[in-house]
Amino acid sequence: MALKTRFTETFGVEHPIVQGGMQWVGRAELVAAVANAGGLGFITALTQPTPDKLREEIARCRALTDKPFGVNLTILPSITPPPYAEYRQAIIDSGVKIVETAGNKPQEHVDAFKAHGVKVLHKCTSVRHGLSAERMGVDGISIDGFECAGHPGEDDVPGLVLIPAAADRIKIPMIASGGFGDARGLVAALALGADGINMGTRFMATAESPIHENIKRQIVANDERATDLIFRTMHNTARVAKNGISQQVVALERQGAAFEDVRELVAGARGRVVYETGDPEHGIWSAGQVQGLIHDAPTCAELIGRIVREAEEIIRGRLAGMLAGV
Amino acid sequence: MALKTRFTETFGVEHPIVQGGMQWVGRAELVAAVANAGGLGFITALTQPTPDKLREEIARCRALTDKPFGVNLTILPSITPPPYAEYRQAIIDSGVKIVETAGNKPQEHVDAFKAHGVKVLHKCTSVRHGLSAERMGVDGISIDGFECAGHPGEDDVPGLVLIPAAADRIKIPMIASGGFGDARGLVAALALGADGINMGTRFMATAESPIHENIKRQIVANDERATDLIFRTMHNTARVAKNGISQQVVALERQGAAFEDVRELVAGARGRVVYETGDPEHGIWSAGQVQGLIHDAPTCAELIGRIVREAEEIIRGRLAGMLAGV
Repeated sequence: MALKTRFTETFGVEHPIVQGGMQWVGRAELVAAVANAGGLGFITALTQPTPDKLREEIARCRALTDKPFGVNLTILPSITPPPYAEYRQAIIDSGVKIVETAGNKPQEHVDAFKAHGVKVLHKCTSVRHGLSAERMGVDGISIDGFECAGHPGEDDVPGLVLIPAAADRIKIPMIASGGFGDARGLVAALALGADGINMGTRFMATAESPIHENIKRQIVANDERATDLIFRTMHNTARVAKNGISQQVVALERQGAAFEDVRELVAGARGRVVYETGDPEHGIWSAGQVQGLIHDAPTCAELIGRIVREAEEIIRGRLAGMLAGV
Repeated sequence: MALKTRFTETFGVEHPIVQGGMQWVGRAELVAAVANAGGLGFITALTQPTPDKLREEIARCRALTDKPFGVNLTILPSITPPPYAEYRQAIIDSGVKIVETAGNKPQEHVDAFKAHGVKVLHKCTSVRHGLSAERMGVDGISIDGFECAGHPGEDDVPGLVLIPAAADRIKIPMIASGGFGDARGLVAALALGADGINMGTRFMATAESPIHENIKRQIVANDERATDLIFRTMHNTARVAKNGISQQVVALERQGAAFEDVRELVAGARGRVVYETGDPEHGIWSAGQVQGLIHDAPTCAELIGRIVREAEEIIRGRLAGMLAGV
């Protein structure tokens, strides 16, 4: 069984299920497992310390799967930006044919990718940014709601409203991101006008996810209320797992603390360390509200198979049954 | 065509579409129009100045429809509370058989309604409050997400996550509230595990809605970003239409203003006046993010008919077509 949508057609994958970029998590093992299960996984470029290391990671992933996969390139404002053009060239040279972009002003990168026949899926958090990316010539939009881990933007519009609002205006294929973890969410996204879903937190809690088992257990244990929004006062909001450090940041921001004080607190508390050491209290790490719907850490094949199978049951069973008055 | 669910069965209505309580809006004309269209409308008890006026409003509604309708009784903390027990008695005496409760500690009211064979639908904003109401013996839950107009609570969990999280634990029929305005939302809610939807803002912009035409036009004009959350600092958050006054409140709260200052600003700016005079800048008035999906002000019969018809098209057409690979 498969769900055929404009997204699966345009991007050439079996299932409309995407594992988008995740800093420190989007590595070859996870991406290849998603690809082998018929989903679309993305290696996170900036998790690799250099463009050459990214070339090695892409080669490593290709050794693990014959199926298509992509690379995420997120453009963040920075005083000392990473060498984006070199990372981009590494992606193109490696023959990767699908890229997920995120962040501001991707036009230069979109142009370069398109010139080399690379399909671009652009992730953004508002209808206006989706329309802007569509005008830039991207091939698909990943529209990211308030529920999501990482950067939800500053509009605070959840998927139930954001997805149909975007579907009313965006013409190219669109997937929905933020708050998705199971078949119920997939069918909801398709009903709301999306052509597929992106999942982040859900793929963090899988057998092939390259993070410490304790963190997977913490995601399973956490409920939908166990996240915090930090960096609101800097207009750079991030949704992270609620812990002692995130609560300190929230309290500092509420008191009107200076940027430097908040930054200092966070600088010593990196997500990478959490993922490696397995201490969920050791740093700031990303997790979305969907952790309230995550109750296990299956393989990617089990997870994707389950979602597609249950989506069919919901459509042919539950929903059609309501129409039939069963 | 009809959608038969546990909600329509338990509450004895044709369509799983509810127009829940709305202060100053939930009057006989609107409620009767919803009932005549096969939905379930609720008269808002406290919009009537006295229990006797509520008896008259119920009689007026009954003259307008032969179909079932209900009354909303919202219990709000107050220094000088309205005579809740007298309003409750007016409902029971009038022979109304469905009540929507909202607010804190409804046990006393639930017991009284149940003793008189009145079915109770309890509206709440979290899984734990839904479970608590289920234990109190209510007949259904209306679970209200972060998107909603009015009081979303303090958890900030949107429907995409809240509905399935609630469906995993609540056993009695459950409808979803907040962010719903069209067939896409209805099918999404049913897929996520709900047995129907509640709509507020969408019913404000209907022909039979007893508010000034200018306010209906403003709802149609507003997009999904045109709301504000006020009273956050008082832990009594309300989502309202964004206007000059709501922005002043947000700014005052951000500055850490005293409760009295905020209250003074709001006291002179009542929603009732907005609805009567038709000046959307004149006061604080409720509207949800779903206004971004509202593009007209049809009759309730047109609206409900359209939603049910399009829901069937989504289920039998769009979703089944994706499975068939059409």
